Amino acid sequence: MFFKKIHSEGLAQLSYIVGDANSAFVVDPRRDCEIYREIADREGVQITHIFETHRNEDFVIGSCDLAAMTGATIYHGGRLDFHYGEITREGDQFEFGAIQVRVLETPGHTDESISLVLADTDFSREPLAVFTGDALFIGDVGRTDFFPERAEEVAGLLYDSLFDKLLPLGDGVLIYPAHGAGSVCGSGMATREFSSLGFERRFNPALQVQNKQEFIQKKVAEAHYTPPYFKQMEKFNLKGQPPLARLPRPRPLSPKQMSAEIEKGLLLLDTRSPEAYSGASIPGSLAIPLEMIPAYAGWFLEPDQPIGLVVQQVSDVARAVRYLVRVGYENVLGFLDEGLHAWEISGKSYQNIPSLYAGDLKKRLAQDHPPTLLDVRKQSEVDQGHLPGSLHIFLGELPTKQDQIPKDRPVVTFCGSGQRAIIAASILMRQGFTEVENCLGSMAACKVLGCRIVS
Amino acid sequence: MFFKKIHSEGLAQLSYIVGDANSAFVVDPRRDCEIYREIADREGVQITHIFETHRNEDFVIGSCDLAAMTGATIYHGGRLDFHYGEITREGDQFEFGAIQVRVLETPGHTDESISLVLADTDFSREPLAVFTGDALFIGDVGRTDFFPERAEEVAGLLYDSLFDKLLPLGDGVLIYPAHGAGSVCGSGMATREFSSLGFERRFNPALQVQNKQEFIQKKVAEAHYTPPYFKQMEKFNLKGQPPLARLPRPRPLSPKQMSAEIEKGLLLLDTRSPEAYSGASIPGSLAIPLEMIPAYAGWFLEPDQPIGLVVQQVSDVARAVRYLVRVGYENVLGFLDEGLHAWEISGKSYQNIPSLYAGDLKKRLAQDHPPTLLDVRKQSEVDQGHLPGSLHIFLGELPTKQDQIPKDRPVVTFCGSGQRAIIAASILMRQGFTEVENCLGSMAACKVLGCRIVS
Amino acid sequence: MFFKKIHSEGLAQLSYIVGDANSAFVVDPRRDCEIYREIADREGVQITHIFETHRNEDFVIGSCDLAAMTGATIYHGGRLDFHYGEITREGDQFEFGAIQVRVLETPGHTDESISLVLADTDFSREPLAVFTGDALFIGDVGRTDFFPERAEEVAGLLYDSLFDKLLPLGDGVLIYPAHGAGSVCGSGMATREFSSLGFERRFNPALQVQNKQEFIQKKVAEAHYTPPYFKQMEKFNLKGQPPLARLPRPRPLSPKQMSAEIEKGLLLLDTRSPEAYSGASIPGSLAIPLEMIPAYAGWFLEPDQPIGLVVQQVSDVARAVRYLVRVGYENVLGFLDEGLHAWEISGKSYQNIPSLYAGDLKKRLAQDHPPTLLDVRKQSEVDQGHLPGSLHIFLGELPTKQDQIPKDRPVVTFCGSGQRAIIAASILMRQGFTEVENCLGSMAACKVLGCRIVS
Amino acid sequence: MFFKKIHSEGLAQLSYIVGDANSAFVVDPRRDCEIYREIADREGVQITHIFETHRNEDFVIGSCDLAAMTGATIYHGGRLDFHYGEITREGDQFEFGAIQVRVLETPGHTDESISLVLADTDFSREPLAVFTGDALFIGDVGRTDFFPERAEEVAGLLYDSLFDKLLPLGDGVLIYPAHGAGSVCGSGMATREFSSLGFERRFNPALQVQNKQEFIQKKVAEAHYTPPYFKQMEKFNLKGQPPLARLPRPRPLSPKQMSAEIEKGLLLLDTRSPEAYSGASIPGSLAIPLEMIPAYAGWFLEPDQPIGLVVQQVSDVARAVRYLVRVGYENVLGFLDEGLHAWEISGKSYQNIPSLYAGDLKKRLAQDHPPTLLDVRKQSEVDQGHLPGSLHIFLGELPTKQDQIPKDRPVVTFCGSGQRAIIAASILMRQGFTEVENCLGSMAACKVLGCRIVS
Repeated sequence: MFFKKIHSEGLAQLSYIVGDANSAFVVDPRRDCEIYREIADREGVQITHIFETHRNEDFVIGSCDLAAMTGATIYHGGRLDFHYGEITREGDQFEFGAIQVRVLETPGHTDESISLVLADTDFSREPLAVFTGDALFIGDVGRTDFFPERAEEVAGLLYDSLFDKLLPLGDGVLIYPAHGAGSVCGSGMATREFSSLGFERRFNPALQVQNKQEFIQKKVAEAHYTPPYFKQMEKFNLKGQPPLARLPRPRPLSPKQMSAEIEKGLLLLDTRSPEAYSGASIPGSLAIPLEMIPAYAGWFLEPDQPIGLVVQQVSDVARAVRYLVRVGYENVLGFLDEGLHAWEISGKSYQNIPSLYAGDLKKRLAQDHPPTLLDVRKQSEVDQGHLPGSLHIFLGELPTKQDQIPKDRPVVTFCGSGQRAIIAASILMRQGFTEVENCLGSMAACKVLGCRIVS
Repeated sequence: MFFKKIHSEGLAQLSYIVGDANSAFVVDPRRDCEIYREIADREGVQITHIFETHRNEDFVIGSCDLAAMTGATIYHGGRLDFHYGEITREGDQFEFGAIQVRVLETPGHTDESISLVLADTDFSREPLAVFTGDALFIGDVGRTDFFPERAEEVAGLLYDSLFDKLLPLGDGVLIYPAHGAGSVCGSGMATREFSSLGFERRFNPALQVQNKQEFIQKKVAEAHYTPPYFKQMEKFNLKGQPPLARLPRPRPLSPKQMSAEIEKGLLLLDTRSPEAYSGASIPGSLAIPLEMIPAYAGWFLEPDQPIGLVVQQVSDVARAVRYLVRVGYENVLGFLDEGLHAWEISGKSYQNIPSLYAGDLKKRLAQDHPPTLLDVRKQSEVDQGHLPGSLHIFLGELPTKQDQIPKDRPVVTFCGSGQRAIIAASILMRQGFTEVENCLGSMAACKVLGCRIVS
Repeated sequence: MFFKKIHSEGLAQLSYIVGDANSAFVVDPRRDCEIYREIADREGVQITHIFETHRNEDFVIGSCDLAAMTGATIYHGGRLDFHYGEITREGDQFEFGAIQVRVLETPGHTDESISLVLADTDFSREPLAVFTGDALFIGDVGRTDFFPERAEEVAGLLYDSLFDKLLPLGDGVLIYPAHGAGSVCGSGMATREFSSLGFERRFNPALQVQNKQEFIQKKVAEAHYTPPYFKQMEKFNLKGQPPLARLPRPRPLSPKQMSAEIEKGLLLLDTRSPEAYSGASIPGSLAIPLEMIPAYAGWFLEPDQPIGLVVQQVSDVARAVRYLVRVGYENVLGFLDEGLHAWEISGKSYQNIPSLYAGDLKKRLAQDHPPTLLDVRKQSEVDQGHLPGSLHIFLGELPTKQDQIPKDRPVVTFCGSGQRAIIAASILMRQGFTEVENCLGSMAACKVLGCRIVS
Repeated sequence: MFFKKIHSEGLAQLSYIVGDANSAFVVDPRRDCEIYREIADREGVQITHIFETHRNEDFVIGSCDLAAMTGATIYHGGRLDFHYGEITREGDQFEFGAIQVRVLETPGHTDESISLVLADTDFSREPLAVFTGDALFIGDVGRTDFFPERAEEVAGLLYDSLFDKLLPLGDGVLIYPAHGAGSVCGSGMATREFSSLGFERRFNPALQVQNKQEFIQKKVAEAHYTPPYFKQMEKFNLKGQPPLARLPRPRPLSPKQMSAEIEKGLLLLDTRSPEAYSGASIPGSLAIPLEMIPAYAGWFLEPDQPIGLVVQQVSDVARAVRYLVRVGYENVLGFLDEGLHAWEISGKSYQNIPSLYAGDLKKRLAQDHPPTLLDVRKQSEVDQGHLPGSLHIFLGELPTKQDQIPKDRPVVTFCGSGQRAIIAASILMRQGFTEVENCLGSMAACKVLGCRIVS
């Protein structure tokens, strides 16, 4: 019996391939799904089943790609009318050598959500582990804000799934959720990726409620952000996105070629570090540091928009492409050959965004005519503490809310550590703001420096 | 928090590196320990602690190597007088970021055995997982046959460790043992490498006893083989084997050079497949197919003996070296350059060992003057069923018991599938037997073919 | 300026990617052409031109695949009516940064053969190097036996190409041919892959002639073998083979599944070593050791025939697939999961082919009733020396000439070292011969042992 | 016969491993010499000879390391009293299978310089190729400025070596020099790494002289920079640097740990891109972008100085270490864990260096109170054209000549493209200059923008 967890960075999405004897199944495959095939080949098994724990909204599921590659059959829960795959219902059982998988319907996060109970029949048919999808995470439970008009109902459904279906499987049952820390699908998740129902029952904060009513109240009161690309993902994952023959392979483009593509509507995505973007960047480009693409591209990129990349090094191109494809952006045309250096020596103009040390920020805010301090963190973070006098606009909403920012003074972008702030700075520059600075270090540095923080 | 399990093939030894924030610890490192350093570098942590769950007897522990490489401190249990490292006792605690490790003394397998209880203090100081060393495996418990004169006492100690120390940690606690299926340290282990105390409590066969007395009786009645190299490992692991500057790098040797080394006492170890060894092999060579080295080299190789390799392909050399070094054989002088092909075209003589199809074996055994059928499996396997009329000598004991084999007729070596049988065949050839055949497929094929099996 | 030579093993085919500034060209790409794209990406250039020095007959050219992947334009010589690509003629020039490429028509091997003269215009427009295709090799010149009815004419054309076009480029010009040692396109090639026109002019044996007449006589007198798949390659390379979306990915098949496919017509190709095949192999399988596939598969496999693989290790599958695809076999259905071991334990029958040490062969041949010694080397090798009394049938012609072999006595297959002899042995077994032995070591060992050799 | 050229980036140093049958030799191995061993293993040969074409001054030769690893013997020319290895003299011959190597004494660059003539005795004992060390490059010849008091003499020696020894080997002889384009050992080298004596004879600018007198005049008139570390390299390479057991492995250091080391004298080397350094950097750090380390570290680092690294990504650490070790800096203590981001969030202060677009520079220079434009290129580059009014100090000499820079106005650093200028900017910041800007794009951009250039 083999068991591999595949952690897809950025999305913090967890998928699994598990097999025994000659066959294997995959739970919630990602789009760039070659990896499952490679593992299966190495283990000498055929992937025969693909299970989707639910219709995902934060990435394009790779089921159709993997099915095309392997001939496996796709299974989902029955309470949503998928345009592809087979339906599986409570109690259905599947065998893979000594492994038995049993389906448990666990609605709440979505109606069609299922969990998969795994047994090792060499020892017992009793539950050994459970794939919980977005119902139960390690340290948190799934969001229930996707059906605002049914808010209480779906929170109640999740309660039942957790307390009447999952926890009763037994304390000793290991859990394997669909996301880890860093996902937009929950905020309290542990950085740790191993746990048991027993540990969660006792120590998962979201499960420490007196009764269903309290659980529902808490869930309904939660505030989550929903990036615009979620709608697109839901469409893709309902109808089944056509398999990619291969990952897009952007071409190297000279500054001249890139400029021509920009004229024709290409969006230039700069994936370099915040420091490098600060030092020099191409006017009009959008900064999203490489590892932040999965979490933030979906807020700012249009479906089908042609994309060009500015990278630190050529090997970043393939990684950026993976990240973009996972969230549904396949039209990655090219990358700037030889990087920003090529642009600089081409004589084309570039911008720079001064980095503002938190110690200096502190002084500037205390002086007359302070800059606008634009805090782009989430509401929940702001609630826990912010610098007095800061203006809060959540990063994802900046493109639509930038009117709130005074035009007559400099803007200093600010977040938890300065990473999201560089995205914000690049957006402001794109919008025509000219005096933009970025506080690298941001709140983390301010705390060390003993800045005054209010909440 | 990150957690990596390192499975060392062949030995089926499991080691772990776990860290948080800037520091990490390693449990039971293997000798070729570069891998821990690489993971630590990638995760941006320093390895500061090395824990040995007990003085291992089946491989050379890599603690001293890893300590030399990283500056980490080594910790063992206190009931053995190690010549290196620090002593840690029941209740000692160590912190690595949010991780807390607490020591539990769990004697039985050996007196100084400890277990390490892990907590994630971001959630609770209650146990989350436990490293159980050779006390508790997935599907089995540790051997207690190393102190024959104290057999009942140590079995009782293990009972107490299991039932009074480990199981009370709670059903929801995940377990991480020091070995998986295929290890010589236990025979009933699951092929699966994940479980919880709850699952083991209910379904681990070795834990299904009425009381301590029954447990002790069962343990005392167990029969285990103890390869001769265990003594050497115990010595090494007590005194602390000097770190290897680097893994040995055997030189390519021409047939002529290899012959000269053989004259001087080199043992030629042929790591190719059973089929290739059958097809053509060098007289006097010992066959141990590559992946079987960790399990069988220690039965047949002398400490310090110079070793030469015959490999299928050059990349096998490095793997063979790893396997040998792990069990204490560092004197790997060279490998046959260009493989057996070079030998063949050099005009030197070679032998072949006919493979005997189980269907033909069946016929031969039914005829007059049947060959000696030499079954080299373990006693426990033979007890479960063997071909009538077969002669049983366990593979590891073949060099000392070959007098039992009649010299006046052909010998067919036989095991579970034909792999161990090729080792046996090569040993017989070395001993001067001339009519040796090997039954590839062996018992597995016989079962399919409906051969008569007695037990 | 960068320059990479890609040596494709087995075929000993040499292709080249050369570039400067932003663009690059490829000469004679192989079918699995990802490698050129990777190099181009790493160097930051676009592949804009693909040159074919001639319509190849020994492998499927990768031009169409590479063009589909990169958008590059394909160029050939004008004296053959290709169904794809552009025509380029004597004197045409192409620029890639400081690189200039000039076309030279060099017929003889084929009518449309061209050479490509490279200059580094940073230094001079005079020739620096030349890609000679199959006109001039290092140590040999191209075959001229493809147009038997025009034998003298084409040999004369080659003479003119060599002496009037290539050599006059100057002694200091480096040469880059389309094949290296081991190719079926020439027999006298150096194992070395670097030379100059000056060195070849003086020391290439094929160029040491007094005049055109002598050159023609020599060429016309040459004997070459032409494998049947050449016809297929010529067709493919004339019309342009449709690009492969990806390399075939054979599935792991259990012994039972493999048997079922064999029933349906699959050919089982065993790519393991001669020793392993000797030790145990599946009845009906064809032995072609992995690295010999490019040279020998084309003699024995039918176009479009479904192929199954027996491999030593899973990683050999991908390599075997590459080798097969290069010579036009794309229908690789599956490989035997877990290798021959799976077959053995499945209870299915297997054969073995005794290996015969040359020393023992010598004795056997001297006794009464000697076996048939079947020498499968090329005529040219046999002419240089063979064992007295041997029967010569060239390996490639064995399937059609096996009637010449007496059925009433054992056959010992024999070649230069025992590698081709195992292929021959497997063919004889497929044809129903039952007493087949293989002389590993063959002629090489016989020479060392001082066997009598006649010529 | 196999032949591999190893290009060591940054140094643009070329070393070679060549072998046949069972043995191989290496010419001018680099310090991190594992690569030769790996190639030798793959090719199945033993490295038996190491040739040094001369005592190198720009890097630490790896002969002693490679000899320790392989047991090979080291050979140098006889006109310098090396403390290790063997002497070889004009006419000495060595055989490696069919390869013959013959020694040619070719003094000039240094007195003990030798060249190695290679023949392929399968074809002829006449020269096929020649390893020319620092005597003859592709497109240039060696420096002769290391013995200023013997300037004319050594230039004359080189003339004789070139015209009386090397060129007479014949036009068709391939050449393999010790350096390629980008090396500090010559300025006119081709980017191309293949040529012949014939091509060089006709087109190498340095060889286009009427007579010895003209050659000497030209050489004596050349101006070369000699970095201070050359002295150290000469010492190391004369006495033989003790082999490294392994490459240094710097530890991850937190900002706090790094600060403590800086207090104790560690030099912080920032290897990130010029843009990233501009965006934010640690006060006191020295910027040398990763790929520029081999060329520039030797100008600014003291022997034995403890070094800390700031890198873009962890994998850069190993590369930086290689580069440093090659030029003799082995004391690499640590790297900033989690990179500059960790520093920023630690609350420690950082600096930034505004990037100045060439278009804006042009305007600034035309206004009143222009900044000092500090051109740090080589004299030869400045001679070919510079912006009017710029102050020239060669980068390598900046630490000792910074008094020449006015303190009362901003400084804009400037070079060919902005890369060396960032090093200069970091040096000025270290020296206490506060208003420093860097012109990314520098002269390259100025040319495109049509700035006025004088020479």
